[in-house]
Amino acid sequence: MQNVEIIYKNAKVRGILINEANGLITIKADNGYNLTFDRSEVEILSRVTIEEKKEKKTEVESFGTGEKSISILATGGTIASRVDYETGAVKPVSDPRLLFGGTELESKFNIRVVNVMNQLSENMKPADWIHLARKVMDETKHSSGIVVSHGTDTMSYTSSALAFMFERLAQPIIFVGSQRSSDRPSSDTKENMEGAINFAATDLGEVGIAMHKGISDGSIVLHRAVRSRKMHTSRRDAFESIDTVHLAEYTSSVRFFSDYRKAEEENLLLDHLDEKVSIIYFHPGLVASDVENMIEGKHAVVIMGTGLGHIAKDLIPVFKNFTKDGNFAIMTSQCIYGSVDMNVYSTGRELIAAGVISAGDMVPEVAYVKAMFTLGNYGREEFINVFNRNLRGEILNRLIPREVYI
Amino acid sequence: MQNVEIIYKNAKVRGILINEANGLITIKADNGYNLTFDRSEVEILSRVTIEEKKEKKTEVESFGTGEKSISILATGGTIASRVDYETGAVKPVSDPRLLFGGTELESKFNIRVVNVMNQLSENMKPADWIHLARKVMDETKHSSGIVVSHGTDTMSYTSSALAFMFERLAQPIIFVGSQRSSDRPSSDTKENMEGAINFAATDLGEVGIAMHKGISDGSIVLHRAVRSRKMHTSRRDAFESIDTVHLAEYTSSVRFFSDYRKAEEENLLLDHLDEKVSIIYFHPGLVASDVENMIEGKHAVVIMGTGLGHIAKDLIPVFKNFTKDGNFAIMTSQCIYGSVDMNVYSTGRELIAAGVISAGDMVPEVAYVKAMFTLGNYGREEFINVFNRNLRGEILNRLIPREVYI
Ligand SMILES: N[C@@H](CC(=O)O)C(=O)O
Ligand SMILES: N[C@@H](CC(=O)O)C(=O)O
Repeated sequence: MQNVEIIYKNAKVRGILINEANGLITIKADNGYNLTFDRSEVEILSRVTIEEKKEKKTEVESFGTGEKSISILATGGTIASRVDYETGAVKPVSDPRLLFGGTELESKFNIRVVNVMNQLSENMKPADWIHLARKVMDETKHSSGIVVSHGTDTMSYTSSALAFMFERLAQPIIFVGSQRSSDRPSSDTKENMEGAINFAATDLGEVGIAMHKGISDGSIVLHRAVRSRKMHTSRRDAFESIDTVHLAEYTSSVRFFSDYRKAEEENLLLDHLDEKVSIIYFHPGLVASDVENMIEGKHAVVIMGTGLGHIAKDLIPVFKNFTKDGNFAIMTSQCIYGSVDMNVYSTGRELIAAGVISAGDMVPEVAYVKAMFTLGNYGREEFINVFNRNLRGEILNRLIPREVYI
Repeated sequence: MQNVEIIYKNAKVRGILINEANGLITIKADNGYNLTFDRSEVEILSRVTIEEKKEKKTEVESFGTGEKSISILATGGTIASRVDYETGAVKPVSDPRLLFGGTELESKFNIRVVNVMNQLSENMKPADWIHLARKVMDETKHSSGIVVSHGTDTMSYTSSALAFMFERLAQPIIFVGSQRSSDRPSSDTKENMEGAINFAATDLGEVGIAMHKGISDGSIVLHRAVRSRKMHTSRRDAFESIDTVHLAEYTSSVRFFSDYRKAEEENLLLDHLDEKVSIIYFHPGLVASDVENMIEGKHAVVIMGTGLGHIAKDLIPVFKNFTKDGNFAIMTSQCIYGSVDMNVYSTGRELIAAGVISAGDMVPEVAYVKAMFTLGNYGREEFINVFNRNLRGEILNRLIPREVYI
């Protein structure tokens, strides 16, 4: 592929060269249009041959001399990016070795890097979660541990999706991101990756997220995916285990802090998701007709209510109709910390009477992913039954506030 | 009004007596139905006369022998409630003295209690904020400090609304709530109220929220309304000042921690709000047509995006059309902590190009209230200009993480 810059009647045009033949030249300009010119009226200012987009080939590269085989599935995000100093934009790294190379990881492990996709994580769709889960499944044939490098923005959503989809796991799946790309002086990439690879070499049979413990280097923590949440826009320790302690910590070795599921004999993937689920954020000006519009055609909706799980009285009938039609309304709280309890106030009891289900202490985004998973694999009949069950540690038995363990 | 319990053909029915005449008796049963019986076929087991609902009279009661006059405007919520031990329901207190009586407050202050409304705060509408603001304005003729007792669920929304609506304040307005009603053994009501009244007796010219500092008694903190957020469903210290230190603390006296606006000569109320504003919570399965439905007819929308303020690329054109029509799209982050910055990634830059405005470090719910206020009082022409200005301390100059001051 060639990037070209041309002059045509005093105007500069930049774009990708599509065709150059029969006295004509066609360019896909940066504004998206295909422009065709008479070749003789055009002067070519520059012509740069660029590599094909990475994601077009299924690319696997191997590094390292160690015995234990770990696969890194790259999906994009800051962790797989570099800063383009000309435009300031963040672009994909060309050499995956930047993510971990030059560390002792290469002598400890045999690392396979697989480029699954290259996306900022805000662009990930539920279909991408399924694609990724299948790629992970493929890769388990080669490796005894899986690392998924991923943008931090929606890492809790994607990792929770995989946590639910893998009914059984024969090895850990460790998500890892970074808040600053690897070519920047204060990047957290290599440390996070070192932690992630070491977590992926344990006997864990769960999906986790490896990120900095604090703002300074030296300690990487592992959050259980289905309890994790990105709680800061920019800090290295942006991720938290909500209302509970993290699973493990890596400094020079891995130390576990709580009970965890051990890896089983084999993997079992349930890879259906019902996409007809959405999240509604309650706010005082929300009116019934807005809610009706939002839930039209959905099979389930996660409400982020106030406090213990409330919404305004005049909205309750809308959800009552929704559930009467065989759909599911799930209550979570915009407080983020603490549990929903709809048995304390009259509002809660009216919601229960309207068929609204409590998500208890589940993280709102996790309840959302769980609803998609449950509907997708178990259907409406089993929904309430399965949704209320603690499938992957997403429901806590006991809430542990942050100040106790930080 | 009379509560009755009757027997009709071996079945017990409880409810409110609606009518008893011409040999018939009509009861609004607890299940909501009106039932009419032949009086002769019914045996009345009990008959209890109950008071009319408080909110029907405009009620002012005064207590205390102190000189300084403080008004408590009661709006409802747990703080103004008691548990009905028979049904488990939470009902309004009949005696407002329960909220502070028996403490030394009565000898220090002259306290006027005004019943403005009696609502669980999840039912508060923007129209109620305006009604309340006007009642506060009336009450400033009588008192040198205002306390508003309010449900905790939406206390940050309501208090932020009043903070914006009072362009100038001649006395403090202190919101106070409680997590457990005053008749329960471990209630936080009296301590919170004591703190609130003492904050209301200072020279502050701002709107704040007074709640417990920690889970044990002894210290009440004052949050600036426009930086506050309810961050826990049930703890006494549910409220936090997001990314900054609280304004003040009360133990046996008030101590201020940060700069604050002093009370001015007079009050100035700008009491318009544009209700055509809503909040959208981005999530990976959100599709363009959903967003179109949600913003139809709105004048502004607050997006709770991921990370530094992102949404999926395919949704950006929807907001571009929305802003092109003269409406406003405002970006906040579902991370809650940290600031939005749309200059780091390509997604952010595309959002800016689509006309989406950054809320910077504003709390999402506060940005929502500010948008309603700005549109209501300044209109579309002035919107961006006013919205970007730091009106009431809702924008921070410097973020102070919680672990620094806790
Ligand atoms: N927006 C990026 C940010 C990151 O990787 O941290 C993403 O989530 O892909
Ligand atoms: N749901 C109640 C809870 C409380 O007062 O704390 C309310 O906000 O009114």
